[in-house]
Amino acid sequence: MTDVDGPLSATPRTRLRRMKEKGRPDRAALFHVLRAGFVCHLGVLVDGAPMVVPTVYGFDERHLYLHGSVASRSLRADAEVCVTVTVVDGLVLARSVFEHGINYRSAMIYGRPRWVTDDDEKLHGLRVLTEHVAPGQWEYARLPNRKELAATALLALPLTEASVKTRSGPPDDGDSPDAALGHWAGELPLVARWQEPVPDPALPAPTPTPAHVAARAGARVDQT
Amino acid sequence: MTDVDGPLSATPRTRLRRMKEKGRPDRAALFHVLRAGFVCHLGVLVDGAPMVVPTVYGFDERHLYLHGSVASRSLRADAEVCVTVTVVDGLVLARSVFEHGINYRSAMIYGRPRWVTDDDEKLHGLRVLTEHVAPGQWEYARLPNRKELAATALLALPLTEASVKTRSGPPDDGDSPDAALGHWAGELPLVARWQEPVPDPALPAPTPTPAHVAARAGARVDQT
Repeated sequence: MTDVDGPLSATPRTRLRRMKEKGRPDRAALFHVLRAGFVCHLGVLVDGAPMVVPTVYGFDERHLYLHGSVASRSLRADAEVCVTVTVVDGLVLARSVFEHGINYRSAMIYGRPRWVTDDDEKLHGLRVLTEHVAPGQWEYARLPNRKELAATALLALPLTEASVKTRSGPPDDGDSPDAALGHWAGELPLVARWQEPVPDPALPAPTPTPAHVAARAGARVDQT
Repeated sequence: MTDVDGPLSATPRTRLRRMKEKGRPDRAALFHVLRAGFVCHLGVLVDGAPMVVPTVYGFDERHLYLHGSVASRSLRADAEVCVTVTVVDGLVLARSVFEHGINYRSAMIYGRPRWVTDDDEKLHGLRVLTEHVAPGQWEYARLPNRKELAATALLALPLTEASVKTRSGPPDDGDSPDAALGHWAGELPLVARWQEPVPDPALPAPTPTPAHVAARAGARVDQT
């Protein structure tokens, strides 16, 4: 990838989606979705069949970094994957069952990830991942030692082929004949918030909650 | 499937997971996860590569019912899929970066779905799906007419092969040498709640919000 600010590449599968009403295949939209989520669903091929595994991720301008897992460890070198990040924003309640749907922000990233083996890049990827999921913890917690670093499986997926789909707003049947039915219609929004931190019962009693953890309580999960 | 109350079948891939600490391959655990979520990630093979698509679902004792999509419409007959439902319950903040993780409930269902073509089963599947995602709307909204029913793509996936993984509770390094570091450690829970309904601006002013919609405001999304 030479132009990190340019449009995402248009391949047949993303072009397919680009033509769809809800496709927004530009990099700003992609990063908007990546910032809003922190768990993705990684689709890999295992013995010829798809397997979809949830895992945490982080990212920089060029790569999505993913924690390895049992399923992804069975990845062949150069195997194609699809990583999907979905943030659900609520229900679309229409006049007719047929027009019901959800409001959401979703990104699908395609490519051939590689295992990160270089220690410096692995530390970089783990920092990026940790700071995306749990901001402040890279500074606060004990960093990986050499043995832990070796035991950590990290995947790097280039951010070069992706599609973004979103839906927001009211149902689409407000100007249809169904509007005359007199039914209520609208959105039922959904918001996920961080709660009060729960101390580990194994902690010595007077361990104060660090400010960077305490400050998240009450904040929306999709606004990091 | 002849015994809907029996254990899930153990295939090599679910057996693999069964051996893992977090595997809980029984039907009660599966339905516990299915009840808590309403959006799944459907993994299909498209031109030999995995594609992971978010979609809504519902279920009865025997089947998961999924809305069809652009990706799933390209499903070959008898193609294997993997459907994953993940409910994220919070972050696990440990003394060391290495022990960080998430608390979650997740189910992976494998199988070969079929397109529902019988009108009665399609109505049943759509009712089950609608009532899972938006309880009360099947009674309240206009039901699908013949044309809409024909235009609706619905997949039925037998609930016969699945695995369930969950993690809950504090980090695992409370009794490790890292406990002496004096760092705070614990959980940062995450809760998603339905918000106040937002009326469609196209509604005539005095349309009251129906009780079954209004009653959801403030309720946890994972407790339907």
